[in-house]
Amino acid sequence: MKHTKIKDLLNSTKPIDNVTVKGWVRTFRNNQFLAINDGSVIHNIQAVVDFENTSPETLKRLTTSAAVLVTGNLAESQGAGQKFEIQVKHLEILGDSDAEKYPIQLRNKPSLEFLREQAHLRVRTNAFGAIMRVRSVLSFAIHQYFQEKGFVYVNTPIITGSDAEGAGEMFHVTSFPVNDAPKNDDGSVNYKEDFFGKETNLTVSGQLEAETYAMALGQVYTFGPTFRAENSNTSRHLAEFWMVEPEVAFNNLDDNMDLAEDFIQYVIKYALDKCPDDLAFLNQRLTDEEKTKPAAERSEMSLLEKLNFVLENNFKRVSYTEAIDILKSSKPNKNKKFNYIIEEWGADLQSEHERFLVEKHFKCPVILYDYPAKIKAFYMRLNDDAPQDRQTVRAMDILFPGIGEIVGGSQREERLDILQQKIADLGIDEKELWWYLDTRRFGTAVHSGFGLGFERLVLFVTGMTNIRDVIPFPRTPQNAEF
Amino acid sequence: MKHTKIKDLLNSTKPIDNVTVKGWVRTFRNNQFLAINDGSVIHNIQAVVDFENTSPETLKRLTTSAAVLVTGNLAESQGAGQKFEIQVKHLEILGDSDAEKYPIQLRNKPSLEFLREQAHLRVRTNAFGAIMRVRSVLSFAIHQYFQEKGFVYVNTPIITGSDAEGAGEMFHVTSFPVNDAPKNDDGSVNYKEDFFGKETNLTVSGQLEAETYAMALGQVYTFGPTFRAENSNTSRHLAEFWMVEPEVAFNNLDDNMDLAEDFIQYVIKYALDKCPDDLAFLNQRLTDEEKTKPAAERSEMSLLEKLNFVLENNFKRVSYTEAIDILKSSKPNKNKKFNYIIEEWGADLQSEHERFLVEKHFKCPVILYDYPAKIKAFYMRLNDDAPQDRQTVRAMDILFPGIGEIVGGSQREERLDILQQKIADLGIDEKELWWYLDTRRFGTAVHSGFGLGFERLVLFVTGMTNIRDVIPFPRTPQNAEF
Repeated sequence: MKHTKIKDLLNSTKPIDNVTVKGWVRTFRNNQFLAINDGSVIHNIQAVVDFENTSPETLKRLTTSAAVLVTGNLAESQGAGQKFEIQVKHLEILGDSDAEKYPIQLRNKPSLEFLREQAHLRVRTNAFGAIMRVRSVLSFAIHQYFQEKGFVYVNTPIITGSDAEGAGEMFHVTSFPVNDAPKNDDGSVNYKEDFFGKETNLTVSGQLEAETYAMALGQVYTFGPTFRAENSNTSRHLAEFWMVEPEVAFNNLDDNMDLAEDFIQYVIKYALDKCPDDLAFLNQRLTDEEKTKPAAERSEMSLLEKLNFVLENNFKRVSYTEAIDILKSSKPNKNKKFNYIIEEWGADLQSEHERFLVEKHFKCPVILYDYPAKIKAFYMRLNDDAPQDRQTVRAMDILFPGIGEIVGGSQREERLDILQQKIADLGIDEKELWWYLDTRRFGTAVHSGFGLGFERLVLFVTGMTNIRDVIPFPRTPQNAEF
Repeated sequence: MKHTKIKDLLNSTKPIDNVTVKGWVRTFRNNQFLAINDGSVIHNIQAVVDFENTSPETLKRLTTSAAVLVTGNLAESQGAGQKFEIQVKHLEILGDSDAEKYPIQLRNKPSLEFLREQAHLRVRTNAFGAIMRVRSVLSFAIHQYFQEKGFVYVNTPIITGSDAEGAGEMFHVTSFPVNDAPKNDDGSVNYKEDFFGKETNLTVSGQLEAETYAMALGQVYTFGPTFRAENSNTSRHLAEFWMVEPEVAFNNLDDNMDLAEDFIQYVIKYALDKCPDDLAFLNQRLTDEEKTKPAAERSEMSLLEKLNFVLENNFKRVSYTEAIDILKSSKPNKNKKFNYIIEEWGADLQSEHERFLVEKHFKCPVILYDYPAKIKAFYMRLNDDAPQDRQTVRAMDILFPGIGEIVGGSQREERLDILQQKIADLGIDEKELWWYLDTRRFGTAVHSGFGLGFERLVLFVTGMTNIRDVIPFPRTPQNAEF
């Protein structure tokens, strides 16, 4: 018997005889009203059970999360809250769910922390169903944006033999038994005998490889998992997260900012268009959560207002030097409310400073650019016109309210000699990066790119506050369950 | 000066004054005809250089792979081979490419093996540009297919604490220094002190996690990297490859076959529609390659004919038992031409048998189903009606000409008791899979899914023969360069 998706039934324009639905019980009220969800949409369909002609044993088994099949007529509902309901003619329990044992008891209002321990079941709740549908739609929006513009999707390697970036924060990958690897005569690990014949790690970024592709295909992007073995137990860090990294030949930093802004607005608009029900639910969820906070800590805008605000307003572009001036003369700096007081040009900005700029000063997404060279990565393009004691690079970070840094990017150093000098200054052996330097040896050109932390985008769009709640099975220090 | 993509210029319907192009030199003939490519399309644009008014020094620098900017009028070409050309008014060399040092000398017809060592530059050739554009378009087709059908994209974890599947073939992930990890009193590695507080590996499949999501969201799919620490140095194996894994609640094995067939036909048709130029080039490349083979080994069909054949013909569905009968009475079995002679029901099929069925016997894609339980994975649904000595599971493999297995899938065992027994028989501790078994404890239902090896699909669609040539930076035994 072919079944119909609940989404399609709820979108029906007229009653339909003899429909079949398969899904999971959400609630069963008054021995009569069965709310069934199949994941196709946040809403349940109400199935009206003919309890007088149904055995009490069967009625008892209509517990939360039981899998059921119902057949009946889709008819206009007499009750409030739904346009259509199913008048059940046939009911089957496909899979029981023992109410005593089912871990998620909604009437006890399980906390988000508790639900994280039930990551395989939390997706059966309204909130997590909505989050994961929105996450999926945002992923697709990202692909569609770049594909429509003629970008080529590039799968850069996950296992990397290159450790020029992020050394010390990388996970090792090996096929050796961890404490029983073969040794060289000097006692060091004989990596020649490891699977890849060398030391390998999990990638922290696909940028360097993507650059080589941009210098052939023009416009490329990656979208894949990246890793940090950083012991950061915060609501904004994951050890495994997905990153989007476009890279464009002939783009300078202004083009790069334009691309990032247009891209972010596109994907947010796409989610608003495609997920109105899920976002309405998440909007209400956040509003309810905000009500539990002291008035002073509540957000001025609702989730939907925040999303629309980002669509309707340009991101404010501010140089690092201007930002430092603003911060130096800001109240929290003068009153020593910042944990790190900004005293001079060259200081690295902390999360508290970024939040002040975005949430208090500008009250909108901000693009900071032209950072001091010494606090940024070696591959960023050196500005020619900066004074020697204030050398800057063509870097940019996009800061979002409530999230902090959502994008980090730069124009890349395209000049071979300057790049070689930077690499030498870092003590990296140039041979490690022979292939990267080849892009500057053969047909080098201005090019730029950025990385967007996908989960931070999902956090912003869903209004969640902990990054562990927007990825199905989060990986964090001391946690790799499932 | 804003530049225009070469693809857009070549698609122009009329001449345009004052266009600017940025790209890389492919060839420079007769001191006059400059072929420029920018990766937007396989074709070059011809720029006619006014050599009498260009310095000899500049003309000398127009070498393969040099980055250039040209401005001029797009005019109808007098020459054969292109509709439009650019009559150059201004020419700039953005980045030189020393012809003596540039590693890829096309006139020497570099081998695919050599190009693999130049994976960062091989994408600057016609063939690899075409392959990577087709790969990108196939990726998008996969997302679009599932999203249009209401599937939810799920990112299952890459680092997994679960080693129930594929133990022994997994890469270890650790933040410990290899050979210097802390130890327990008994000398074993103290994984409690490792980053995740337990032993972790790289995933071999997202299926088990995807199943938990299918039992909430109905229809889900993964598309991400998976890993095998298997020492297979063949043209069809990678240590790191991308896999697509749809999983659908309430689908039985027939639904699963229908989905797989429809899906594969959709994405191939999408590539044919979106990449006609790249596929025409790859079609010719394969035809030329075939000509170098002895007549008996040549393919009967061209690449485009093969792709259209898959679209126009249903996949042949054959049970394992029927396949064994066919193989037993086949000529190569009787004449002992197979390396592994098929003697009785229960034998595992080798690549040679699959190729015989697909390429010689049926001459079309084949879906084999209902395999012996003992040669398949524990989570596959046991057939109720099979005799005890011929127990089968609802597994299916899709076999493609030239590629072998491209899809492996099954209906999943939804019955808790049978699944527990299978796990016990394998000696796996049930506690390792507590969350997976929960899907059978709470609202279990019939469900099915499959895995498609993405690079094998790309192999088939591009007509390449070595899997290392269809992923940007292949990872294989003794190779993790770049």
